[in-house]
Amino acid sequence: METLNFATFRAADFEQMEKQFRTNLINSLSGFKSVCLVGTQNRAGVTNLAVFSQVFHVGANPALMGILVRPDSVRRDTLTNLQETGFFTLNHIRADFYKQAHQTAARYEVSEFEAVGLTPIYSHAIQAPYVAESHVRIGLSFAERHNLAINGTVLIIGRVEEIFAPANCIAADGYVDIEKAGTITCSSLDSYHTTQRLARLSYAKPDKPLTEINW
Amino acid sequence: METLNFATFRAADFEQMEKQFRTNLINSLSGFKSVCLVGTQNRAGVTNLAVFSQVFHVGANPALMGILVRPDSVRRDTLTNLQETGFFTLNHIRADFYKQAHQTAARYEVSEFEAVGLTPIYSHAIQAPYVAESHVRIGLSFAERHNLAINGTVLIIGRVEEIFAPANCIAADGYVDIEKAGTITCSSLDSYHTTQRLARLSYAKPDKPLTEINW
Repeated sequence: METLNFATFRAADFEQMEKQFRTNLINSLSGFKSVCLVGTQNRAGVTNLAVFSQVFHVGANPALMGILVRPDSVRRDTLTNLQETGFFTLNHIRADFYKQAHQTAARYEVSEFEAVGLTPIYSHAIQAPYVAESHVRIGLSFAERHNLAINGTVLIIGRVEEIFAPANCIAADGYVDIEKAGTITCSSLDSYHTTQRLARLSYAKPDKPLTEINW
Repeated sequence: METLNFATFRAADFEQMEKQFRTNLINSLSGFKSVCLVGTQNRAGVTNLAVFSQVFHVGANPALMGILVRPDSVRRDTLTNLQETGFFTLNHIRADFYKQAHQTAARYEVSEFEAVGLTPIYSHAIQAPYVAESHVRIGLSFAERHNLAINGTVLIIGRVEEIFAPANCIAADGYVDIEKAGTITCSSLDSYHTTQRLARLSYAKPDKPLTEINW
């Protein structure tokens, strides 16, 4: 039986809430998030680095990922740059530089790489900087944009052009052990978490018990 | 200096890959995900429950969340139902029922609630079932739909109508301690993980050192 004491919030309550309370509360609802550093540069080569937690898988074939961008936020450079060059990078965050990653959200006059002390590196294919300290890095080209009428947020879909990941973290079946690679996650606006695997589970079928995948 | 051995994959390689390898690989790239059970029902009241890992925050004011739905997948009932009734629920997953949550992906003829042994519960406001075993539950009304031209995926944006969360997990500043609430995360298609907090970090400003938030 349920003995937990639940707090309930309703839409009618939201407008009365203190702004920061509402922001923290609503940002908590989407669970643990795919937090990444997004690397871009403008045509002149000036780099930008921004922490994003609205990052998601869109499709495997073609290989697509999406990010949501608020045009009115400090991250607007990301949007301007990626539309200018057609490229951006996604870089997983590790515990040894998560404070620097968080700090990229400050409004700097110089490149966030320089300001927070992270290292830009480049491949031949992508006109955007990767983060050398990151162990899982994805280079993407701009593919599709949708403007969300309801709040002015912009959905950017990128096509995966290249992937760098530690060779010893890639399973024989293609699964990348991002926990072993040190990737962390975040919740709400400011909380960062490491992970501990419960299990990989077999493909679900109606009359077959699940088994744990050992790879 | 970098001593890690990196594997590199390029877009030109993707088409040659064995399908399951590519699926696992590309699904790994978005990091740890906001995995939820999505509850819906049709007009006749027949319930559906499906595990989704493409769930994200869209905005705090108005309070909005998004999910990506593949119309050609087993999850099509979710899309049909939520467009029919205008409602859906998001239910965080805990370690004590993650195998049942994963099992909802199987193609059942009956309601997944019944098939996997989870319990539907209802509020007055939302014409969709919540999961009683979940400790963080969000009820949403349909707000906006975008069809992604590039792969036929559908973006659904919902307006947050009500929130249920354990009272002892809500900080004074509105942050919900979802780790304390037992919320787990997933990676790629089949791996589930608990979390361990590193810290909550203060709002980033250019010339101010970050501090840890103790709440």
